[in-house]
Amino acid sequence: MVGSNLVLFLLNCWRVNLIKNFCIITLQKLDMEDEQVMDALEAILTRRSVRKYTEKEIDDTCIQQLIEAAVSAPSAGNQQPWHFIIIDNRRILDKITEFHPHAKMLKEAKKAILVCGDINLETYKGYWMLDCSAATQNILLAARALGLGACWLGVYPREERIIKLRELLEIPENVIPFSLISLGYPAEKQEKIRREYKSRIHYNKW
Amino acid sequence: MVGSNLVLFLLNCWRVNLIKNFCIITLQKLDMEDEQVMDALEAILTRRSVRKYTEKEIDDTCIQQLIEAAVSAPSAGNQQPWHFIIIDNRRILDKITEFHPHAKMLKEAKKAILVCGDINLETYKGYWMLDCSAATQNILLAARALGLGACWLGVYPREERIIKLRELLEIPENVIPFSLISLGYPAEKQEKIRREYKSRIHYNKW
Repeated sequence: MVGSNLVLFLLNCWRVNLIKNFCIITLQKLDMEDEQVMDALEAILTRRSVRKYTEKEIDDTCIQQLIEAAVSAPSAGNQQPWHFIIIDNRRILDKITEFHPHAKMLKEAKKAILVCGDINLETYKGYWMLDCSAATQNILLAARALGLGACWLGVYPREERIIKLRELLEIPENVIPFSLISLGYPAEKQEKIRREYKSRIHYNKW
Repeated sequence: MVGSNLVLFLLNCWRVNLIKNFCIITLQKLDMEDEQVMDALEAILTRRSVRKYTEKEIDDTCIQQLIEAAVSAPSAGNQQPWHFIIIDNRRILDKITEFHPHAKMLKEAKKAILVCGDINLETYKGYWMLDCSAATQNILLAARALGLGACWLGVYPREERIIKLRELLEIPENVIPFSLISLGYPAEKQEKIRREYKSRIHYNKW
């Protein structure tokens, strides 16, 4: 009796794995055409900075999903100190390339998101930039999951970039432009790079 | 001819969607028992701070996957200024609760990861804390994807926490303890909370 139960149990494990592997492989194949479903670890490991984009436009639903991902980030004491400026005005995108030294890709980008920190919303001092980083990283990963290419352009703490963006986008004094994310459908492949990490791990002490 | 091609095309779309939906539903059902596969957007939207854990141990493979996720984060000029201290020594975990005001959950946590920034590795000044934030967020999301519960405990920029952790873990002066992530299998449910975000969106200017 125990023996036959064991056989049934093993058969079941095998069947479940078989179905599961079939599903994963099928989804991966389908995802070559349609990037709406992506395994979370896969998205994290294959996200790369994408600086070349196709002509395809990004629809508003995508942008909403990116912002929903952003606001799902954790923040110190749940202070959520962020604001987002969606930029798709060609004149503004081009203008940014005139003062930001690494923003050349905005000439091709379909849209950009400027993540900002509102210091009036900060209740835990000194954490707003960490909260905005987590929100930025969520946008990059959600972009990857949606088949978009994205690149994080540093703004904070570079004073001259902050001042120019504040002026260009009429941002009030209490709000600090933090990071600029260029967006478009990728015209280059995002591939997993296995970075060496063993030398960065320590156990219970340095 | 055009008509029959159209019928074939529509039939094909319908079939692909049917297979895909079957796969997604089956995977979701299987994932109730085994959390190894999770949609990226789902992971981002359902990640919550988890402070209650079960007795189940976390194996080393999981920790390796979390660190691999961490080092896949972007960093300013690709400087990768991070180090990771894996803590599973009960005495050390308990000790941290004596000086960190929000670390009570470490009493239950099976492991913790201290993300550190090495200022000797920083080539783009002022960005190491943003890089470490992105790495921290990747760990939190990878933990969610692996069925773990995690919580980001703030360390930097709180001077007293930095000093105590440096002392406890014998961390050199050039390395700054940045964030502490408590880990365990969740004894509480992580559910999607739809945060209001429309009021945080602006278009082309503030």
